[in-house]
Amino acid sequence: MTLRRQARHSLQGLTGLLGHSNRRVRRKKPGQAPGTLLHTGQQQLDQMLMTVHDYDTERCQSLAIDQIDASAPYLGSSTKTWIQVRGLHDVERLQQVMDYFELHPLIQEDILSISQRPKVEPYGEVIFVVLRMIRAEPAADGRPKLKSEQVSLVLGSNYVLTFQESDDTLFDPVIRRLGMKNTRMRRHSVDYLAYALLDNLVDHYFSALDLVSETLEQLEEQVLEQPRPEDLQSIHALRRDLVYFRKSVWSLRDGINSLIRDDSPLITSDVKLYLRDVYDHLVQVIDSIENQREILFSLYDIYMSSLSSRMNEVMKLLTIIATIFIPLTFVAGIYGMNFNPEISIWNMPELNWMLGYPFALGLMASIAGGMLLYFRRRGWL
Amino acid sequence: MTLRRQARHSLQGLTGLLGHSNRRVRRKKPGQAPGTLLHTGQQQLDQMLMTVHDYDTERCQSLAIDQIDASAPYLGSSTKTWIQVRGLHDVERLQQVMDYFELHPLIQEDILSISQRPKVEPYGEVIFVVLRMIRAEPAADGRPKLKSEQVSLVLGSNYVLTFQESDDTLFDPVIRRLGMKNTRMRRHSVDYLAYALLDNLVDHYFSALDLVSETLEQLEEQVLEQPRPEDLQSIHALRRDLVYFRKSVWSLRDGINSLIRDDSPLITSDVKLYLRDVYDHLVQVIDSIENQREILFSLYDIYMSSLSSRMNEVMKLLTIIATIFIPLTFVAGIYGMNFNPEISIWNMPELNWMLGYPFALGLMASIAGGMLLYFRRRGWL
Amino acid sequence: MTLRRQARHSLQGLTGLLGHSNRRVRRKKPGQAPGTLLHTGQQQLDQMLMTVHDYDTERCQSLAIDQIDASAPYLGSSTKTWIQVRGLHDVERLQQVMDYFELHPLIQEDILSISQRPKVEPYGEVIFVVLRMIRAEPAADGRPKLKSEQVSLVLGSNYVLTFQESDDTLFDPVIRRLGMKNTRMRRHSVDYLAYALLDNLVDHYFSALDLVSETLEQLEEQVLEQPRPEDLQSIHALRRDLVYFRKSVWSLRDGINSLIRDDSPLITSDVKLYLRDVYDHLVQVIDSIENQREILFSLYDIYMSSLSSRMNEVMKLLTIIATIFIPLTFVAGIYGMNFNPEISIWNMPELNWMLGYPFALGLMASIAGGMLLYFRRRGWL
Amino acid sequence: MTLRRQARHSLQGLTGLLGHSNRRVRRKKPGQAPGTLLHTGQQQLDQMLMTVHDYDTERCQSLAIDQIDASAPYLGSSTKTWIQVRGLHDVERLQQVMDYFELHPLIQEDILSISQRPKVEPYGEVIFVVLRMIRAEPAADGRPKLKSEQVSLVLGSNYVLTFQESDDTLFDPVIRRLGMKNTRMRRHSVDYLAYALLDNLVDHYFSALDLVSETLEQLEEQVLEQPRPEDLQSIHALRRDLVYFRKSVWSLRDGINSLIRDDSPLITSDVKLYLRDVYDHLVQVIDSIENQREILFSLYDIYMSSLSSRMNEVMKLLTIIATIFIPLTFVAGIYGMNFNPEISIWNMPELNWMLGYPFALGLMASIAGGMLLYFRRRGWL
Amino acid sequence: MTLRRQARHSLQGLTGLLGHSNRRVRRKKPGQAPGTLLHTGQQQLDQMLMTVHDYDTERCQSLAIDQIDASAPYLGSSTKTWIQVRGLHDVERLQQVMDYFELHPLIQEDILSISQRPKVEPYGEVIFVVLRMIRAEPAADGRPKLKSEQVSLVLGSNYVLTFQESDDTLFDPVIRRLGMKNTRMRRHSVDYLAYALLDNLVDHYFSALDLVSETLEQLEEQVLEQPRPEDLQSIHALRRDLVYFRKSVWSLRDGINSLIRDDSPLITSDVKLYLRDVYDHLVQVIDSIENQREILFSLYDIYMSSLSSRMNEVMKLLTIIATIFIPLTFVAGIYGMNFNPEISIWNMPELNWMLGYPFALGLMASIAGGMLLYFRRRGWL
Repeated sequence: MTLRRQARHSLQGLTGLLGHSNRRVRRKKPGQAPGTLLHTGQQQLDQMLMTVHDYDTERCQSLAIDQIDASAPYLGSSTKTWIQVRGLHDVERLQQVMDYFELHPLIQEDILSISQRPKVEPYGEVIFVVLRMIRAEPAADGRPKLKSEQVSLVLGSNYVLTFQESDDTLFDPVIRRLGMKNTRMRRHSVDYLAYALLDNLVDHYFSALDLVSETLEQLEEQVLEQPRPEDLQSIHALRRDLVYFRKSVWSLRDGINSLIRDDSPLITSDVKLYLRDVYDHLVQVIDSIENQREILFSLYDIYMSSLSSRMNEVMKLLTIIATIFIPLTFVAGIYGMNFNPEISIWNMPELNWMLGYPFALGLMASIAGGMLLYFRRRGWL
Repeated sequence: MTLRRQARHSLQGLTGLLGHSNRRVRRKKPGQAPGTLLHTGQQQLDQMLMTVHDYDTERCQSLAIDQIDASAPYLGSSTKTWIQVRGLHDVERLQQVMDYFELHPLIQEDILSISQRPKVEPYGEVIFVVLRMIRAEPAADGRPKLKSEQVSLVLGSNYVLTFQESDDTLFDPVIRRLGMKNTRMRRHSVDYLAYALLDNLVDHYFSALDLVSETLEQLEEQVLEQPRPEDLQSIHALRRDLVYFRKSVWSLRDGINSLIRDDSPLITSDVKLYLRDVYDHLVQVIDSIENQREILFSLYDIYMSSLSSRMNEVMKLLTIIATIFIPLTFVAGIYGMNFNPEISIWNMPELNWMLGYPFALGLMASIAGGMLLYFRRRGWL
Repeated sequence: MTLRRQARHSLQGLTGLLGHSNRRVRRKKPGQAPGTLLHTGQQQLDQMLMTVHDYDTERCQSLAIDQIDASAPYLGSSTKTWIQVRGLHDVERLQQVMDYFELHPLIQEDILSISQRPKVEPYGEVIFVVLRMIRAEPAADGRPKLKSEQVSLVLGSNYVLTFQESDDTLFDPVIRRLGMKNTRMRRHSVDYLAYALLDNLVDHYFSALDLVSETLEQLEEQVLEQPRPEDLQSIHALRRDLVYFRKSVWSLRDGINSLIRDDSPLITSDVKLYLRDVYDHLVQVIDSIENQREILFSLYDIYMSSLSSRMNEVMKLLTIIATIFIPLTFVAGIYGMNFNPEISIWNMPELNWMLGYPFALGLMASIAGGMLLYFRRRGWL
Repeated sequence: MTLRRQARHSLQGLTGLLGHSNRRVRRKKPGQAPGTLLHTGQQQLDQMLMTVHDYDTERCQSLAIDQIDASAPYLGSSTKTWIQVRGLHDVERLQQVMDYFELHPLIQEDILSISQRPKVEPYGEVIFVVLRMIRAEPAADGRPKLKSEQVSLVLGSNYVLTFQESDDTLFDPVIRRLGMKNTRMRRHSVDYLAYALLDNLVDHYFSALDLVSETLEQLEEQVLEQPRPEDLQSIHALRRDLVYFRKSVWSLRDGINSLIRDDSPLITSDVKLYLRDVYDHLVQVIDSIENQREILFSLYDIYMSSLSSRMNEVMKLLTIIATIFIPLTFVAGIYGMNFNPEISIWNMPELNWMLGYPFALGLMASIAGGMLLYFRRRGWL
Repeated sequence: MTLRRQARHSLQGLTGLLGHSNRRVRRKKPGQAPGTLLHTGQQQLDQMLMTVHDYDTERCQSLAIDQIDASAPYLGSSTKTWIQVRGLHDVERLQQVMDYFELHPLIQEDILSISQRPKVEPYGEVIFVVLRMIRAEPAADGRPKLKSEQVSLVLGSNYVLTFQESDDTLFDPVIRRLGMKNTRMRRHSVDYLAYALLDNLVDHYFSALDLVSETLEQLEEQVLEQPRPEDLQSIHALRRDLVYFRKSVWSLRDGINSLIRDDSPLITSDVKLYLRDVYDHLVQVIDSIENQREILFSLYDIYMSSLSSRMNEVMKLLTIIATIFIPLTFVAGIYGMNFNPEISIWNMPELNWMLGYPFALGLMASIAGGMLLYFRRRGWL
């Protein structure tokens, strides 16, 4: 019964830190035309939010808009423009936005399918980037979690479009920096902004790594002190999280790499140096993930050997107790035999000794003592 | 006896979801000329079915034909034509069709050998594609299964030929879309149709993945609650299914990749963008399969440790019972000794005490209680 | 003693299906000049056999010859010629043949060293191919075996030379097809013949795979019903066979691949298409071998867990029996104590009860029953 | 309780030789601009130290400076200059140095972030190298440790800049050689100096390897004599150290390789030969690390089998003792039965034999002896 | 105590066949200039030996020289010259030789450091090759060993230099062939001689493989008959030897490959064909090593399962004995109870039966027999 309850408990525990029920995902039905727009995630916001950030070296303004047409003056001017879209559930309004920028049907489909793997794809005059935000979330219910969300980015010649699932504050630091005068971001063209958004997202990976580290440390302590079946499942759940995490980082790394190598007019060679820095960070993240996977493998080994050594310890002590009493019981059995001492002096004369009983007890005590001594000397006790 | 019955049961269980008895396959005999036509599968249909789908931007018509010559007018016109052949057992009629299009002998052989691995091969003026349909089949006998079938596709300059083993409804959604006006499919040339058929087939992989996921979940629950030897075999059977699945997807991915990279006049650069999308889906499928393999490895670990921890639990309790009674039996043995209390007051005076028996029982009770307490404190109970 | 006999038995069993004692091989001594001719295999035939197959579109004749000079008229004519040499032990006569064709010393050495790995090597005006025949042999002593033999092939501009260790009927189907009029083989030049010989040899790999499959199935049944130590060794022996098999196929695949890619004037582009087909078959063979290795790994897991679960079953039942009787023995021990009931009514009054004995027996029966019930309820019985 | 203390002990033990708490690292906050200077390590020195080494074939002088401007005369002259900076905590002064040389913001950031992975990156007119010093530290507290520190190197056209975390004597041998006349170092340009610094650092890897070897040997001895749970944890800790070590060496190797392959005007072809030598040493280091990982895996196997064979030995002996006494106790039980010998001669006549008791003891002795003999003969004792 | 002695024994056993204490190696100190000459091996000869082999198609003479200047006339003439140096301890004289040929400082350093990994490096006008001789040594103390020695080779335009650690007879067969007239070696230029030396060394690898095979076979037999802890350590030691062996062969293979691919004027295209043959042999060696590693893995599995199955066998039999006697002892305990038969006929009437005792003995015998029967039927005996 207890085992069964444990099982229940651990089935939930198996979701790990990421809590991604990424096993089944809503998708367009087989045979539907590509570009069929279908939001495969869950609604995260009441309403789609659109913000225009328009800036050049001189000025920077941010304003919320309702209709995408409202962004026309900014896009038409010589300033650089970032249009930030949050909330993907309202397919109709979203399509207006995407059609306004004449995005390719496949880009449109990918923005809405929220379980894409990160990728960087040139589409004629724009570069389309699918990103995966993974960040440690402040613990609402006491137990910290990783939060995972898809972020899409379209880089045009003088604009950047970003699409987020929720109103996560992910990009707030960039918005703040955009507000400051005389920064590289204000001077450079939009590719630097795209880089800054990317860099910001990658920085969050480190916070996620920290959370995994902490969890690992707690688990390690737990396993060393008192290994429980749930711990084994936590180990496996963490392993899956790391596999998922690594895959995301890995494909982003490949995408960044192709950006650095390829010659797109949208990316200046100056920004490529910065992208190489992001690339380096991603390699560092992958390294850390590999380290943590190593630690998990070690933990698994330690769990198994700790479990079996605890079991062995139990069995050994119990067997020793049994082994000591078995010869004693034998001695007691001897003197419980009914041979008739009256028939000959060879028949159990001890029974009629003055100190027969103390002798027997002494014999037993010395047997027990001898065995204990022997066990201790061989290091079994 | 029971074990033997289990063995039987599980030998059948080993076929897994795919039920592919792909171990032995009918093949041409060693030394037979290449291009020797031999259908290596089983007859799935009473009769070979041929349908011509002829379409251009204006019109679209579908009609069943009996002789391949009947398709001549459509092929000769400026319209685009798709000839859908279902059923591969009637080698003679099939050869007429294939000869009509002057397919290379090796293409002919491959269409008929139904255990080909997916591939994409340019043959002069056509591109030959071998595909593997894998889809979840609606459960006939209550237990859902994966259905696997070979689909071949020949892409010419203005026609597409498809060959299926059975009259599976696989391509019905594409036929429906073909019937709609003003779609991309009607506007583009036949390479877009080929893409649509491909995309449709790949979409089904996700349904197959869902079924595997479900099965995995059930297995996980089962293993956590009550691990059985059959579960181990199910784990292995699923693993083999996934290996097979992955291999199919992997080689298709490679084929699609070569289509995107190579410069065939049959594939327009516009359709290449769409093929890149299919490529992405295939990578996603491979990712999911990898995830599920990880889960299977975890399940195996959990199965093994669950099994051994259940066994240990049993052994521990039983050993504890034995260990408690052994000292008690020893005490009983002591007072069953026959030392003569009449000879001296040192000889088992307890026997003649007023409360000797209650004392002995009390002694036993306190020993048992002490041990229980000790065991509980060390956490062994 | 039995274990020792088992060991003997299994040392022989370890040779597996291939029975390759490929661990130690006769070789030229260190420092001997390259091209030193030394036949490293065992004599398989009484005498070296030479057959000339001379053919063109019109005619085809096969005749045995004694001296290689006898082939001069055929080689000099415009016809295509295949000289089939069987038996490698007669180094002197063989050298006459090889010198007649002015084969490079290293080719000569390789033809005679029968444990070469398959390879395809261009040597100036000829292409030298080392192949490994692996085929299922009809079971002479009831137990089917795999037969492995080295086959070498030299492709010149208008001739093909083949060297076999024994008079295996490997190439008979090709000879039969050569006798038929109007076949591709008669029309094409000798590279097609070389392809046909290759294809024929690769076809036999599938028969070998079938034998491995059958053996695996039997082993699987055996392991599930009654795992024996020999089975473990059979698993390992099969694994080694598959490693050897895979390596042979793998290097042949690489060789074929280089033939397809490189531009040798000896291979026409038409035949390259056919070679691509052979390449595909080899990939299929490798896939199957990989599958069978997976199955072997599964079998190993099943063997181990089956062994330990059988052992556990035994131990559990025995422990249960012991555990039930230990409390009963304790009760018997109690009533075997010698406390004197006459001294007080507290001292073992049961001994003088009218139904003391039945009471004791009943007590024991109810303890045993209770424990059995408890064990059954916890599912341990 | 003891287990818990062990756990504590080993949690500390888990840091291994490197003692790198490299799990969590101070980093710039998400969204901070790249190039934001933040020293992520711990202060190692009271004050930043700067030394100028100025040399050419004729002269060589070293002097400590306070302000970076003081190095101007040396940099401006035709001599070669090496500016050695030690201590990274004083961000302000450091920035003055880095700005003086107009280092790219990303170089500046990397110099300060002390957990970079080794890399070699061309930045316009300089080459930036991040290195990781790993050396065996003389044992302060008796237990030798590995010391790991980041070293950065900037190679310009006529100067070398190095940045170290502490005043480690790492580069002292190079400074000594620089003081000698007529050495290659004095003749060559600064790229040779950079090579010499690199080579010097790589030489220290071998001392680190020696320490690991020694530790491994001690661990091996310990595991073979008396395996303890701590040893398992030491094995895992060492494994992590080696993973970390290997990763550092690996990325340095890649960096060196790109230096050799690429055509930078800063590296003369002569120095490339020397770099190839460093490359070779790094490959050797990686080989050694791989060997030591193999040894660790072996140690793990030996630990596990040693543990279980010790346990088995204990259990076996105890079981044998129990098994010998059980039949003896049975015999004693027989003669403790209360059948009435007076009723018939069939009822336990032994009780009234003259030598009944000695007979019983003899019976027991011979049973015990027989079993011991049997056990010994089967090799269980 | 015995375990401890075993441990000692096996620590020595861990050195395996190669006996390479390659864990710690004498090296130049960190910071010493590259090209610092330091012999890192042990002195193997009393004195350095130098032999000049001077040959062309006509003549061939070998003579020992004392000073390297003595070779001047041979080097100056149009003949081909091989200078064989044996013994590396006399650094001074060695340096004279190396300086005479103006070898690059790094070559000089590598010749003296005897733990280099094999490599092939072009240095301007010479090619420098580091080789590792591994050969089976005739068993001096009864136990055959592998002997490993570094051999360096410098190939110039008309001379070959070889450096060996000891006066091993490794190259004697080549010297003998050099003495024969009309051989390829005499006709070709020195690159063929270099090839011959290489080929000769590689041939010895096969003798080493044979020794490993033999050792493996003995170990296999041992493990199957009576697995001992030492065997496990032998398995691991052999594994390490093979890892070391494989690495040496692997890097030599890479070196040879680069020789074949690159265009060095020192290697004629004719000799390249022969080098391809050496390459093939090395691949064969690697294959064999891989096979033997597979066998070692199998052996490990067999060792573990053999160990545990022997242990299980012991435990099972002992448990069965215990289990049979426990119910018997219980019966004896019953009839040892002291219920008073005189009080009622229900109280242990058996005690006063005429055949009570034989009845009890019969009961016990039938219980024991029944259990034995049951055990045998379930296959546990």
